[in-house]
Formats: sequence, structure tokens, C-alpha cells
Amino acid sequence: MSSITTPASSVCQVLLYPKSIALVGASDDVKKTGGRPLQFLRRSGFQGNIYPINPKRAEVQGEKAWPSLAALPEVPEHVFILSPTDTVVPAVQECADLGVKLVTILAAGFSESGPEGVEREAALREISQKSGLRILGPSSLGVVNPGNGLVLTANAAFAEPDVPQGNVFVASHSGSMIGALVSRGKARGVGFAGLVSVGSEVDLSVGEICMATLDDPAIQGYVLFLESLRHGDAIQAFAREAAKRGKPVVAYKLGRSSAAAEMAATHTGALAGEDDIADAFLKDLGVVRVEMLETLFEVFPLAKKLPLGAKQGKRVGVVTTTGGGAAMVVDQLGVRNVIVEPASAETVAQLQAAGMPGSAGRVLDLTLAGTKYEVMKKALDIMLEAPEFDMVVAVVGSSARFQPDLAVKPIIDSAGHEKPLLAMLVPDAPNALAQLTSAQIPCFRSPEACADAIAAVLARRAPGQPATVKVDHQQPASTISEADAYELLDKLNVPHAPAATYPLDNPPHSLPFDYPVVAKVCSAHIPHKTEVGGVVLGIKNAEELSRAFATLQQNLRQKAPGVDCREVLVQPMRKGLTEVLVGYRVDVDAGPIIMLAAGGIWAEVMRDRSIRLAPVSVQTAREMIEEVKMLKTVSGLRGKEKGDLDALAVAISNLSKLAVTPDLPVQEAEVNPLMVMPEGEGVMAVDALIMRS
Amino acid sequence: MSSITTPASSVCQVLLYPKSIALVGASDDVKKTGGRPLQFLRRSGFQGNIYPINPKRAEVQGEKAWPSLAALPEVPEHVFILSPTDTVVPAVQECADLGVKLVTILAAGFSESGPEGVEREAALREISQKSGLRILGPSSLGVVNPGNGLVLTANAAFAEPDVPQGNVFVASHSGSMIGALVSRGKARGVGFAGLVSVGSEVDLSVGEICMATLDDPAIQGYVLFLESLRHGDAIQAFAREAAKRGKPVVAYKLGRSSAAAEMAATHTGALAGEDDIADAFLKDLGVVRVEMLETLFEVFPLAKKLPLGAKQGKRVGVVTTTGGGAAMVVDQLGVRNVIVEPASAETVAQLQAAGMPGSAGRVLDLTLAGTKYEVMKKALDIMLEAPEFDMVVAVVGSSARFQPDLAVKPIIDSAGHEKPLLAMLVPDAPNALAQLTSAQIPCFRSPEACADAIAAVLARRAPGQPATVKVDHQQPASTISEADAYELLDKLNVPHAPAATYPLDNPPHSLPFDYPVVAKVCSAHIPHKTEVGGVVLGIKNAEELSRAFATLQQNLRQKAPGVDCREVLVQPMRKGLTEVLVGYRVDVDAGPIIMLAAGGIWAEVMRDRSIRLAPVSVQTAREMIEEVKMLKTVSGLRGKEKGDLDALAVAISNLSKLAVTPDLPVQEAEVNPLMVMPEGEGVMAVDALIMRS
Repeated sequence: MSSITTPASSVCQVLLYPKSIALVGASDDVKKTGGRPLQFLRRSGFQGNIYPINPKRAEVQGEKAWPSLAALPEVPEHVFILSPTDTVVPAVQECADLGVKLVTILAAGFSESGPEGVEREAALREISQKSGLRILGPSSLGVVNPGNGLVLTANAAFAEPDVPQGNVFVASHSGSMIGALVSRGKARGVGFAGLVSVGSEVDLSVGEICMATLDDPAIQGYVLFLESLRHGDAIQAFAREAAKRGKPVVAYKLGRSSAAAEMAATHTGALAGEDDIADAFLKDLGVVRVEMLETLFEVFPLAKKLPLGAKQGKRVGVVTTTGGGAAMVVDQLGVRNVIVEPASAETVAQLQAAGMPGSAGRVLDLTLAGTKYEVMKKALDIMLEAPEFDMVVAVVGSSARFQPDLAVKPIIDSAGHEKPLLAMLVPDAPNALAQLTSAQIPCFRSPEACADAIAAVLARRAPGQPATVKVDHQQPASTISEADAYELLDKLNVPHAPAATYPLDNPPHSLPFDYPVVAKVCSAHIPHKTEVGGVVLGIKNAEELSRAFATLQQNLRQKAPGVDCREVLVQPMRKGLTEVLVGYRVDVDAGPIIMLAAGGIWAEVMRDRSIRLAPVSVQTAREMIEEVKMLKTVSGLRGKEKGDLDALAVAISNLSKLAVTPDLPVQEAEVNPLMVMPEGEGVMAVDALIMRS
Repeated sequence: MSSITTPASSVCQVLLYPKSIALVGASDDVKKTGGRPLQFLRRSGFQGNIYPINPKRAEVQGEKAWPSLAALPEVPEHVFILSPTDTVVPAVQECADLGVKLVTILAAGFSESGPEGVEREAALREISQKSGLRILGPSSLGVVNPGNGLVLTANAAFAEPDVPQGNVFVASHSGSMIGALVSRGKARGVGFAGLVSVGSEVDLSVGEICMATLDDPAIQGYVLFLESLRHGDAIQAFAREAAKRGKPVVAYKLGRSSAAAEMAATHTGALAGEDDIADAFLKDLGVVRVEMLETLFEVFPLAKKLPLGAKQGKRVGVVTTTGGGAAMVVDQLGVRNVIVEPASAETVAQLQAAGMPGSAGRVLDLTLAGTKYEVMKKALDIMLEAPEFDMVVAVVGSSARFQPDLAVKPIIDSAGHEKPLLAMLVPDAPNALAQLTSAQIPCFRSPEACADAIAAVLARRAPGQPATVKVDHQQPASTISEADAYELLDKLNVPHAPAATYPLDNPPHSLPFDYPVVAKVCSAHIPHKTEVGGVVLGIKNAEELSRAFATLQQNLRQKAPGVDCREVLVQPMRKGLTEVLVGYRVDVDAGPIIMLAAGGIWAEVMRDRSIRLAPVSVQTAREMIEEVKMLKTVSGLRGKEKGDLDALAVAISNLSKLAVTPDLPVQEAEVNPLMVMPEGEGVMAVDALIMRS
């Protein structure tokens, strides 16, 4: 990000509401990429000034072509550079010199394509930082605002003239997707307040662009199409602000499968870019992450109706005119860990009094009562009033197709209730969907999308305390010794096994704790002790301890010659009911994160872990413990002994406070293993690897 | 199923092509359920004889009403009973007496609704068995054949007149779903050769009905909407026959979520009705089980193009005009463990020679080459010819919406290749989808559906050897003692630890193996030994052994007084690299199955297991081993010691042979734990629980 920046609102202004535009390299041929923006802008009736720049022609598409930016009668606010890669840097420099506010770059061929490209990109960044000129792209297909006819894009999809106007703003890493998203939104009755292809984000990133638009009253919600979490800090800042203002943010993020395919790694450091970090990041910032493309727009009315920060209840009631159809929804919700609850005895009594079927199972099936307006309306009203439900899903069968008055209209008529009312239509029923959509009722055409939307909205969390620690990932981090690591854990109140250090050449005659003990080489220069034969286990007495020191000395000479190591750390052997890994890391994209994972060999084959943005409260740490399946084995299951999970939660929370302790600049802290002792006996780190930044 | 049955073809005849129909309880009011079948049949122009029966009226819907079945001028082939529950049994008896071939029952109120209903159902079954009259239902909404106007249904959805004719046959446990399925098929250009609401399957079940239609040349594929695997034997028989004839069977089965929500159980016996058994059942029978409703019809062209039994390659190549769109497909395939492969060097060279981009990554992205017919056509042809791909997916961007000639037409023109070519359209593009559908090209409107279809088709397996064992689940099974269980394992060549039995009151002075040993009470009447304190571990010498016998005697007196137990089984203590559970069971729905699961405490919290229909070959057992993640810890990962997975595969296959050994009538056999020893040292059962039927 540049050091000199125009104010956020100013970026929004020149991005979505420019008074003047120049098109550098505008082509006369409307079939060429460079010809499209002029054609689209004219066709959509954009009212600002448009200046085609083409030094080779007097006219472009029947209008005057200007020879250069300098020749224009005014300084354009927004310049779209359509010309080839090698012309871009000089053109951007000219924009900066003239005082242009925003330049969008279509060409590719920057840092993704070799050393020359990296140089070009550096040049762009330098120009931006020196001049305050903001840059969108490179590789940006442009920006669209249907509200004022700003179809400033080279995306061929916008040849279709009528982009529906609405209140959703789209920012996409993929330029080709914005056209597809418009067509899909259109098919669902969703309109747009703006669409931006962010390209490779040399300057303006997804987060910064969205942040700049937050005060735009035309924008009521955001759709992000993300390839990665790059510039995660800006996304984080934006998402926190959006959450405060109650503007829902919905994201579709690529990269789920690398996570699915990969074997879990024990080492926190290996997690970079993994999808479950991105997932925790988005959910912890209140972003609705959908799993299905279909849900991307369908989820908005639900996200709006169930604002973030409200104490979210997760109890879903289902009313239906089709048993089989409702079963699909219940099933798909269950797969996503959302359990549909049956009505209470009181509610059943009310339903019976109203002539509804008495034996309400998991869903209220109205099949026997017949598909009638009055029946459906009454059933919905009773269910929406019932205190045991936080939302109600109406699953409508075949009548939805041609007789929407029977079971769809009552949904529209009952939707004024404070609790969300959703509709899932089992047949193909485009007209009923249109009616529901225009009534702003969350409605779905497949059980999977319905369940995806509900699960995604329920999975987001109100953003917690932001981290205050920053780490420069360009600077190499340095390991500290295990002894120093324990000192740091002491400051954080993370318990560890007792430990004492002794000179490598002078084993102690007595110890401050009982045998058996373990002896480990202790040096900031040996992060992985076992690799150099630096650990001797099961030492039973002083004589063995002395021999162990000798062994360690010899191993160091052989396997780590010349490495500075003068001490041995001695620790009593401790065994817990189970062992876990607790890791803290300042992730390059997500920022400070805290992870809890199953320990031992299982961590290598099972992706059994829970991640949150750090810091976390003890309560959040408890939720993390719930999510790690392995810990069920010490939760009192089948009469097995319980582990001290309260102490574990406190330890997780305490370690995570590194994120708000800037005087302890730690890049990565991995406590592995942390022994979980029986209930009441706490937890205990028996090894720790910490990298300071 | 009845003992006297009309031949299969005859069932098909009267079900889908009846020459005459009687409607018992036909109503004059077309808005009433009982009025619909007559109205629908007349409207659709059914050409057979139709006799409305209504003793209270001379006319029904303007045509002559008959007072009774006996009064008709002929014996109708198919009678649809629309009258209330309490009239059903006498009406069915009358049908049987008259020689009617098939009766369909609309009413509910049978075994699902208390003792009276159970009695009614038994009466129906008895009539059917004695007379040979076949019954569809109760709770059946009827049957539809668009080919001859047979809209013999009370489902209101069929008020819509034009059910599209085609070659897909639908059998559904849910009657309300058949209307929804027709509307969804219609929206996708899919037509039907028949639809049956099977109701509660008192006589004709899903499997039997489909089996009866297999010779109907109008039917080229099947869609099953299943709530459970009830009458699994009939489904199995049908699926095996369908596989032989190359008629694809696609299933959507409810019940996924109970599996997702439930904690795994260690005991094989607790698995009944769990979804992963159903999943293994369907896949082992070559059924395409889709996860998404949307995919149910979209998957057919792919299933047809990739016939079952052909050696299925799983290597998918992707060609695209939109990087972001293709990334979604790759991602969703990856989530489902289908990995998209990049083109080989040879293929890249060919593409370059044809002017295509050279740097083919995981997908062939034609964005830079521009969206043009010639480019797409050439690229598809080269990819389809490339030996490294078994199928090719074309992901088309915005051009698909209004310019299908550019990138959709080449797909149609290249689809004649032997390998499947699939299309996924990123924008909303209904016209292009229609073009592709009518050209019988598998095409998809979401990345999730595309990936679901591919994964579902690749997951089905050519049916293996059928089991020959049958178990009567009405009869209680009986446990045999551990010593007898080992004898049975010996017959099956499943290795176990050495064992010797001694009288409970007479401990031995010497043993045929070394100490330490374990002593366990040995009785057919004590299946769960630890529950009665029946196991003493870590016995180091004869004296301790003698004490152990005394302890066992005392524990039995206290915790299992009066239980017949006279022997103690002594076994050397053996520890493997890891332990697994291998279970065989004759499942009440799926028939004989074999399961491999992670052993120990992990089995309780992780659903880490693999299931197949028994028997399995050693090769299939190897695939099962691949699917159990825990076994990665002994597969040589990170230099850790390898377990004898070859011996494990042989043991699994050998145990599964119980399914084809009718002289060993075992209902359930659970080897838990089976120790996996280091490579070359085999596997060893150290406990086994067997229930004979």
C-alpha cells in the first residue's frame, strides 16, 4: 500500500463516480479488447467526459481521438490503460505527472512473468507511492457501476447492455468471473451497485477498495470472489468495519481442495496458505463464506435478516408440504452440523388446536392437512412465534410450480416476523422464486444451496479483539532456545514442566526434581533437537545423567559440528492423558492465528485441528477444544478419565495473547507437545519452539 | 415378497402398459385427491379402458360410474384403490378373487400406524401371496408413463399436462417427489419412460419394480429416490442386472446426515442403517450415487458415455476460456479427491504447434488465445486425443451466454470422440445448456454439480462376486466362545495369536508359549469379557497365572453368577505396530459386508473406516486399506516403520469369504483388535467375537 493515499471516499469517487475518463489505447475495432470500453460506455449512456486516446488515428468509433493525455482539455479523473504491457509504465508516469487520481491497467506481464515484469511492477509501485496516484490492476478488466452507466471494462460479457442496478458490490480477483456473476445475479433478481476486477493488486487491493466504498449509501452488501487471502490485513480492516455497519460480506474463496487433498502437517510453519486458515479468518471476521457458487447471491436476504453480532441462535424449524423434500433439507443441514429441531409440546398443542397434524416429528409435515393457504399461513405463524426456533424453513412441494397462492403466498405474507423465514422450493418453480426474491425472502432452488446458506450464515462469528502485533515477513525470524522459550511461556502463564539448565561439560550431581528425567541440548541454533541426536530420554539417576551429557556432547560433535551449544536442559519425564499441539503464528496473509491440533502421530494423518484469529478468549478456546475430535477421548466419553480441558482453554487463550503483546515480538510459537493432565491437574508444555521476529 | 409371482415382464406390462384400469373410489370432484387420476388419464388421452368405480353415483366427471369391480364388463388389469384405509383390504380381496393382476393402494394407515395397521398390512401380504395379485403401495401416489398417457396418479403435480417423454425411469420412496423430479427433468431437457411412487412396499419394492422393467426397450436408465435401503436384496439383484445390460442407475439417497452427526461406534453391530454402508452398497453395485439433487439428471449422459465395467481411468483434463471458472471446477473436483492433471510435454508441444499457449499449467487456459471457435475446437481435439486424459472438461466463460458459437459449438462438434467430453458453463446460459443437452453432452450449471457428477461416476465400481449367504434376521443369533471363534478363523486362514484353554479350576503348570500372557474367561455366554472382570493382563509366570485363574473365578461369581463358564483362554501378549478392527456382518438391508476400521480409542471419535460388500478380493482389500487414514501411520510415512499391509489385505479378504461359505452361517464376526505387525511378520487377531445365525 502506498504511503501517500487519497482519502477513502475519494477512491470511491473516482472509481465508481468519475467525472471524466480517458481510454489510453482505445481501438476503433469494437471486436478488439481495446475497443470495448468506449463502446460499452457509450451504449450505457455514461454522462461523464470520455476521452479516447489513440495517437495513430484522428477518430475512434466515430468520435474524436486524442493524441495523448497531455493534449486533453482537462485532467481526467480515471484513466484506463488498454495498451500493451511495454507502454504501461510510461503511461502511468504520465498520469502521475498530470495529477490523474486513478489509473486502471488492463495488461498482464508484471511480477507473474519473470524479472522484467517484476521490475515493471516495482516501477508502478514507486510511481504510486511518490505521487499518490492510485492504481487498479495490472490485469484488471475494469470497473462497472450500473447506477451511472460506468461500464468501464474490457470484459466481453458486458456487451449485454442491461446490467441490473441494485445494492450489491462485487470485488473479484478473477476478471472473467465478474461477467458470469452479473448473469447469475440477474437470473436471481439481484442487482449491483458496482463490480471491480482487482487484477493483481499492485496498489488497490480487494480490502482497500471495499473499505473505500463503505460510506456509499448505494452499497448495502458485498460479494468477494477470492483466489487467496493476499493483502489479508486490508480485507480484515474492511470486514471489521463492514460488520460494525451491518453490511453483510459474502465470500466465495478458491483453494478448498489443496486442503482436502493434503496430509495435515504437524508443524505450524507449514500451514501457510492452507484453506482452513482462510476459513477461520473469514468466519472470525463475520464474513459469510459460502461453499457453493449458487449460494453466493441467494444468501444475502438471510444474512441481512440475521445481523451479525446479534446473539445467533442456531435452532431451525421446518414446515413442509412434501415429506421427501423436507427430508432432503434436514439431511443436508445435518451434514453441515445444523440440527433441525422438532416443535415443543406447547407448539404441538397450538398446532393441534389450529387443526394441524398433532404428531409433529422432526419437521411439521402438512401433507395430510392438504396444501392450502390458511393451513400454511397458520402453521408458519405458530412456528415463527415458537420460542424454540430461531429461524423457520418452509419447504414447498409441487404446488409452488403453478399454484404459488397455496403455499408460497403464505410465506410472503408471514415474512414480516422478526425471525428469518426461508423458502426452499422442491420443483422447478421460477415464478415462485421470482415472487419470493422480490419480497426479499431468502429462497433456494436446491436443498444443498439452502443448507449451505444457513450453515454459512450460522458459521460466521462477530469479530473479536483485533491483534496489535505486526511482523515484517521480509525479515528472517530467529529461533530462541528451549530455556528462553520457557521463560516466555512463564510470562504468558502457559504452564510447562519444570526445567533446569547445566553446562554441557558439567553435569549436575543433584537435581531440583525427581528422576526419571530427559536431557536435551539447549541452543537457539538447534531448533530440531532430535535431528542431531540431542535428546536422551528415561534417565534414571545421576550416573546415567552424566553419561547422557557425554552422549549429547559426542552427538553434537558428530552431527552439528561448529554449532554454538553450551547447555543441556534437564526436565522430569511427564506423561499426560493425551497430548496436543498449540501453535501461534503471525501468518503472512491472515495475521496472528492460534491453532489447537491433535498431537502425536495422528496429527500427521488426520486434519484434526481448530484455528482462530488470535487473540482468543477462554470461551473461544473452549469452542476450539470442542472442534478437535481427538479431545473427545478425554472429555469423559464412555466413562474414560477426563482431562483438564479448562486448563487447556486457559493455556490456549494465554498463548494467543502474543497477538496483543507487541513487546514480545514473536513470529511463531509452537508448544508441542502440551500434555493434558487429568482433571484438576492442569496442562504442561514439555517442549516449545519459538521464533522471534 | 410373495411366493407366487407373475413373471417380471408381466409386472412391467400391467404397471406401465395396462389395457384396462379401474379406479376404486373415483371422485366426481376433480379437486379432490380421488378425482385426479380420472381427470389426468382423460386429459392425457390414455387409450386403454378406464372404469371409475363409485357405488354412490351413476356418473363421475361426466362419465358412467360403475357400482363395483364385479359389475365391470371385463377384469381390469390394474386397479387403483383411492378409497379410505378401512375399505382397502376388502377391495384388494375382491381384486384377488376376480383375477386382477396389479392393485395400487393410495391410502396410508398400515404398519406405520399402530397394531390395527400392522394387521391390515399382514392381510394384504397374505392376499398377495395366496393369489399372486401384485400390490403397489400402500401410500403409493401411483404410476405414470408419458409414452402412452398413463397418468395414473393422485399427485397434484401431474395437473401439468405435458410430462416429457424420454428414456429415464424413476422409482421413488417419496410420492410427492415424483412431481418435483418431472419438473426438474423438464427444465433440463430430460424425458421419462415411467415414474412410480412405490409407497411402503408391502409387495412390489423399488428393486423388484425396476428389475421388472429391465427388458423394456423404452427404458435406458434409472433414477432412484431412496429414503433407505429397505428390500436391499431386490435393489441388489436389479442393480447387478442393470450393470450387465449397461443401463445406468443413478440414486439420490437420504440419510447422509445421521452418519455425519453421529459418533462412530466401534462395534460393527451398531452400524445398522448407517449411511456409509448404504454408500458402499450402492457404489459396489455400480450405482451412481449423487450428492446433489441438481446432479440427479445431469449425470446421465456421462454415466452412459463411461460405461461401467470398462477399465475406468480417473485422469481429468480441463480446457477453459475463464481462469477463475476453471479454478472453481478444479477446486471442487479436488475436494472430492479427483485430481485434475496437467497436459504432458508431448501434448503441450502439440498445443504450441497449433498456436495455443505453451505454458499449460494444471488447466489449459485459452484466455490469451481469445475465445474463438477454431482455437477451442483444436484445443479440445488435442486434449481428447492425449493419452494422459480419460475425460476432458471444457469450462466456458461469459461467451456461452450469448455467443455459443465461439466456445460451446466446438464442444458439440468434438463430442464424437470416444472419451467423454463435458461442459461446465460459468455464466447463466440456458440456451447453450439446451444445445448441449440435446446433443447429449454432459453439461453443468455449477462447478459443484459438475464435480459431483464426475466424482459420482468415478466412484461406482463394477459389481463383484455376489454373496451366497442368507441370514434370517428374525431369528436370534448366538455368540460362540473365543476359542471356537479362533477355530473358525483357522478355517478362514485369518491368523490369530496362539491360544490354549484350560479348566477354570485347574490352571496349567506349563504353557506352550512364553510369558507374559493374558488370561480370559472363555464362554459362549460371555461376549463382553471385560464387563465381568474376565480378563487378566501381563501375567509373568505360573504363579501369577494360578492367581489369575482364582481372580477370574471370583469375578465370575460376583459379576456373572450362574453364567455357564468353565474354561480360561490363555494367550501370549502380542503388540503390533498398530491395531485395526476387521468386521464382517450380514446387514439387514445391505447383506454381507466387510469393514476395516482404525482400532483403539480413535475408532470411537473418528469415522475412519472403509466398507465393501463381501466377499472382497485381496485387491479390493488393498483399496480399503488405502481408505483408512490411520493406516498411513504404518505405510512408511516419514520414515516410520512399515506394517504388513499385504498380510492385512489377505486377512480382510479371507474373513470376507464368510459371505460365500454357506456352511459357516455367521451373522457377525468382529476381529478386534487385529494387530498389524512389522512388514513380513503378518497380522494377528488377539480377540474375536462371532455370532452364528
